[in-house]
Amino acid sequence: MFNFTFHNPTRILFGKGRIADIAKEIPPSANVLITYGGGSIKQNGIYAEVIKALEGYQVHEFAGIEANPTYETLVKAVDLVRLENIDFLLAVGGGSVIDGTKFIAAAVPYQGDPWEFILKQGGGISSALPLGTVLTLPASGSEMNNGAVITHQAKQCKLPFMHPLVFPRFSVLDPTKSYSLPARQIANGVVDTFVHVMEQYLTYPVNARIQDRLAEGLLLTLIEDGPRALLEPDNYEVRANLMWCATLALNGLIGSGVPQDWSTHMVGHEITALYGLDHAQTLAVLLPAMLQIRQQAKRDKLLQYGLRVWGIVDEDEDTRIHKTIQRTSDFFIAMQLKTRLRDYNLSRDSLPLIVAALQKHGMTKLGERRDVSPEVVEKVLELCW
Amino acid sequence: MFNFTFHNPTRILFGKGRIADIAKEIPPSANVLITYGGGSIKQNGIYAEVIKALEGYQVHEFAGIEANPTYETLVKAVDLVRLENIDFLLAVGGGSVIDGTKFIAAAVPYQGDPWEFILKQGGGISSALPLGTVLTLPASGSEMNNGAVITHQAKQCKLPFMHPLVFPRFSVLDPTKSYSLPARQIANGVVDTFVHVMEQYLTYPVNARIQDRLAEGLLLTLIEDGPRALLEPDNYEVRANLMWCATLALNGLIGSGVPQDWSTHMVGHEITALYGLDHAQTLAVLLPAMLQIRQQAKRDKLLQYGLRVWGIVDEDEDTRIHKTIQRTSDFFIAMQLKTRLRDYNLSRDSLPLIVAALQKHGMTKLGERRDVSPEVVEKVLELCW
Repeated sequence: MFNFTFHNPTRILFGKGRIADIAKEIPPSANVLITYGGGSIKQNGIYAEVIKALEGYQVHEFAGIEANPTYETLVKAVDLVRLENIDFLLAVGGGSVIDGTKFIAAAVPYQGDPWEFILKQGGGISSALPLGTVLTLPASGSEMNNGAVITHQAKQCKLPFMHPLVFPRFSVLDPTKSYSLPARQIANGVVDTFVHVMEQYLTYPVNARIQDRLAEGLLLTLIEDGPRALLEPDNYEVRANLMWCATLALNGLIGSGVPQDWSTHMVGHEITALYGLDHAQTLAVLLPAMLQIRQQAKRDKLLQYGLRVWGIVDEDEDTRIHKTIQRTSDFFIAMQLKTRLRDYNLSRDSLPLIVAALQKHGMTKLGERRDVSPEVVEKVLELCW
Repeated sequence: MFNFTFHNPTRILFGKGRIADIAKEIPPSANVLITYGGGSIKQNGIYAEVIKALEGYQVHEFAGIEANPTYETLVKAVDLVRLENIDFLLAVGGGSVIDGTKFIAAAVPYQGDPWEFILKQGGGISSALPLGTVLTLPASGSEMNNGAVITHQAKQCKLPFMHPLVFPRFSVLDPTKSYSLPARQIANGVVDTFVHVMEQYLTYPVNARIQDRLAEGLLLTLIEDGPRALLEPDNYEVRANLMWCATLALNGLIGSGVPQDWSTHMVGHEITALYGLDHAQTLAVLLPAMLQIRQQAKRDKLLQYGLRVWGIVDEDEDTRIHKTIQRTSDFFIAMQLKTRLRDYNLSRDSLPLIVAALQKHGMTKLGERRDVSPEVVEKVLELCW
C-alpha cells in the first residue's frame, strides 16, 4: 500500500425526508443562493421542499446550470453572488450543478479570471464560499469530494480542478429524489459510478486488500442493482444502494494508497467537449477498449476482477481476461449504453482530432504508469470506433 | 437501509515516516501536551520521533495512562492542562491513551465533575480541546471516531461516551510503529477489530449491500493477515492492512444505516471492570456464545456471513450456522486467545455478579432488537463459562 492522506469532512444526511434537516447545517444569518439546472426540480417537488426547509433565510436562485457546466454560464452566477452579497451556496441537482457550484464558490473571492485556477487544477485558490448540496442524480460523487470538472465552451475543453475548500459542508442524499429521473440518466449514473471505481481499482496490485474489497463490493452492487433500477424505478432499497455507491466510489476512500488510472476519463472528456456525448456514454465506449489494449499491464488486476466480480474461473488466463472484458462491455449494454463510437455517428476522421485535443491539453502520459501515450490512445480509439 | 448521518472530519496521515508531518497539523503557537502510556514509546523510538517533529513547540507530557484508562488517572492530567494553559493534546499510543485523551479534552473546559458527562454518554459537553493522535496499536478505532471508554476504578465500572468535539483533528497511522508490539497486543487488536465489525454486521439484513460488503472485506482481511502478523512481525503490507482495517472497522462507515448490536462489548466491559481481563479476551469468549444463543434472531446474517466470509456451503442451514460459529471461535484460538471464561480462572460464582453489574448500569435491554435481557446474558455466560 502507498502512503496516503485521507480527509473528507462532508456531512452526509442520508435517507427519506432529509431535506427538512438542511436548516440545521446552514448559519441562520446566511444569504443563500440556490443553484440548479433545467428546472426539473420544480416539476418533481424537490424545489418546493428545499424552499420550505429554508423558511426564514434570505434566498436567491440561479437556474440553468447545464450538463457539463460551462465557464460561460457560471461566471454569470459569480456576478450575481458578488452583487447580492450571497454567502452560502446550495446546489440542488446532480454532478453538473454541484461541480458548477464548486466553481462559483472558489471563483467569487478569486482575484482575476477564474479560468486561471482551472488551468492550474485548483492551484491559486485561497478561499471559497461554503456550499451544501441536495443530490438528485447519483453518479458523479461530487457531493462528497473536492473535485469538479468545468467546460470552457469557447475553448472547447473540459478540465478538472480540485481544492479542499470546495468540499460540500453537507450533502443530502434522499434516494426517493432519484425516482423521477429518466432511465437514461439512471443508466448513465450507474456506468459513471462503475468506471469511477475501475479507474481506482483496475491498475496493478499493491496489497491494498480493503480498498480492493470495497471497490469490488461497489462493482457487485452496481451489477446487482443497476439493471433493477431501470425495471423498478421506485424501489427504495435499490435506489438507496446505488446512491450510496455513487458517493463512496469517489469520496477518496477506495483511491487511498493505491495507483489510479483516469485515462478513460481524460479521453472521455475530450470526446464530450468535441462531440457532445454524455459523459457516461464516452466511458462505456472507452473502458472495454482501454482494458483490451492495456491488458498486459493490468493483467493481475484483470484476473482478480474477473474472479471476484464476475466469478470467472476458466483455467486459461487469456480466456479469463477475454471473458472479463466481454462481461464488462455486456454490462454497459445491459444498462442500455452503446459501446462503439460509430454508434454515436462519429466518423473515423474524428479519431485524430480527439488525440490532438488531448495533446493540446498536455495529456500525453496518462494512466497509472504514465504510459498511455497518444499512440496508445490512437489504438484504443481505433478499437472502440 | 435506515436513514443515517455520516460525518467524520479526522484527517488520516497513513504510511511510513508520517510522524514528521504532524507539525503541519498543529497551530504553530500551540502549547502541546503529549499523552502516553507505560513508556514503551521511549524504548522503540516513537517518542524521539514525535519530539523531533514538535521542534519549536512548547511541549509538556503526561505519562502513565493505563490500559482501560481510569478517571482517577485522567483527572490528574486535567489539572496539569489547566495549570499549564495547554491548548493542544497529542495522544501517542493505542486506544486506551487515545480514549483517555478524549476524556481530558472534554473534561478541561467542563464545569463540575467530568464523570457527569460519562454518565450522560457525552451529554453536557459543549467544548473540548483539539487533539491529534499518533497510533501505535491498531485495535480500538478510536483514532478516527468520536467515542471513548473510561473506567472508574472506585466505582468499578467501565462506560462509553461520545461527542463530535472529540474527533481527533488528525491521526498518524504508521504501520512500522506496530512492529515492536508484543504478540498478545497484536492478537488482541485483530480480535477487537473483528468483533467491532461483527457488532455492526451480524444483526439482521436491511439491504445495505455496500456496508455488508465492506464489513465482509474487513473480516476477510483480518482472517488472512491476522495470523500472518504473528508469524511475520515486520511484514509492512500485513501491518498496513491490519492498521487500516482497525480504523475503518469503527469510523462510522460500516455502521451507517444498519442495525447495531454491541451487547458483546457491553457485557465484556463488565468482565474487564470486575476481573481485569483484556478487552479482546472478553470479546473472544463472549461472541461465539452470543451467536449461538441468539442464532434464531441472527439467522439470515449468520448464513450470509458463513457463505461470504468462511465459504461454508453445506446444504443444511443449521449445519452451516453451527460450522460458521465454530470457525469464528477457531479463528480466535488461532489468534492465540482463549474462548472460555474458566480459562481465565473465573469461577462459576462470578456469572451472577457480571449480570448484576450490567443491571446496575441499566443495561437490561441490549442488542439490535433490545431483546438481550439479563436472562439472555445469563445463558450466554453459562455457555461460555
